[in-house]
Amino acid sequence: MKRDKEVPVPVLRRMPSYLSFVKTLQKQGEKYVSSTRIAEYMDIDSTQVTKDLSHTGITGKTRVGYEVDSFVKILEDFLGFSKVDCAFLVGAGSLGSALLQDKGLSAFGLSIEAAFDVDKAKVGTKVNDIEIFHIDQFRAMAAERNVVIGIITVPAEHAQNVADLMVAWGIKAIWNFTPARIKVPSHIVVQNTTIYMNLAILFNKLYNQE
Amino acid sequence: MKRDKEVPVPVLRRMPSYLSFVKTLQKQGEKYVSSTRIAEYMDIDSTQVTKDLSHTGITGKTRVGYEVDSFVKILEDFLGFSKVDCAFLVGAGSLGSALLQDKGLSAFGLSIEAAFDVDKAKVGTKVNDIEIFHIDQFRAMAAERNVVIGIITVPAEHAQNVADLMVAWGIKAIWNFTPARIKVPSHIVVQNTTIYMNLAILFNKLYNQE
Repeated sequence: MKRDKEVPVPVLRRMPSYLSFVKTLQKQGEKYVSSTRIAEYMDIDSTQVTKDLSHTGITGKTRVGYEVDSFVKILEDFLGFSKVDCAFLVGAGSLGSALLQDKGLSAFGLSIEAAFDVDKAKVGTKVNDIEIFHIDQFRAMAAERNVVIGIITVPAEHAQNVADLMVAWGIKAIWNFTPARIKVPSHIVVQNTTIYMNLAILFNKLYNQE
Repeated sequence: MKRDKEVPVPVLRRMPSYLSFVKTLQKQGEKYVSSTRIAEYMDIDSTQVTKDLSHTGITGKTRVGYEVDSFVKILEDFLGFSKVDCAFLVGAGSLGSALLQDKGLSAFGLSIEAAFDVDKAKVGTKVNDIEIFHIDQFRAMAAERNVVIGIITVPAEHAQNVADLMVAWGIKAIWNFTPARIKVPSHIVVQNTTIYMNLAILFNKLYNQE
């Protein structure tokens, strides 16, 4: 995960699809993949593919392309999927519990170590073997375990509050699953993921076709 | 959900945040909200807010702005959140089960009515009261219940296969949660949501700060 500068977000959006495609080829026993073939799969120009991949430092062979096994390894390293980071999740409601259920996250480098809530009925229970603690324990536990990634899955109206607490408690990167826009100091990384936003886009496209 | 033309995706991406903000104000008992206030919350220009909202047909009052209650109603209708659409989900693995767990989806207009898998051990079981059927039953059930939205949560290498089947079986909109890029006829709506992609972006920002 060491490189010179931040990679543009559109590049980072395409890379997991490159990786997914090449992993499928790997399962099928293929040894090499060309940028042209990746470009066809992605429906983009092959110069875009080679330009994107140049960020990772991977080198291909003339005529045959990239070696599949090393492609997978280099991209997994580059995207941060090969090293597991620990995270704490705040808000063990419906969406939070769903995320705790998703065993797939760890394959992408994220392990949710503990969940937190204010609801005393939830404190002490477990979801997918991950314990739910009272929010008051977040600060001490984050410091003790050196956790720097916080996931917010509380109702939208509490998102800013939780973000403020996380920043005060030493969190460096916040993964915000609420539709709320949170304001944090500039050195804090925020990534917004609102699956419901995607639903609005899907509905709009669907109902404008009929 | 009736309007003249497709709304640009960036507008649809902002709207759930507008709605979320105004719903919070509604809970706090506020009656009116100005475009300036929404713009400050979003960190964008207020002309952008009024331009975005013009798609919905909402009208504000001079000086006081939009009426909060009708703002919430109009945006929920506009985004398709107030009318519940039924969907079938294929792939009752970790991510699929997580989505089935998320009771929040129905508040945004989507009800997952049934799940499908090829794993015989899963068929007949339930997740969050939603029954898992064998994939062979998809076609007949979709026709019977007139379901037009399909959700794909299978391993990436099977995504195209499942998409092809869904199209053959009458699905009109596909919500693809895998990192695979699926190819479908142009009249089929596809919305890609890869939460792991967002994770790659978060890791990249985090590790370039240190």
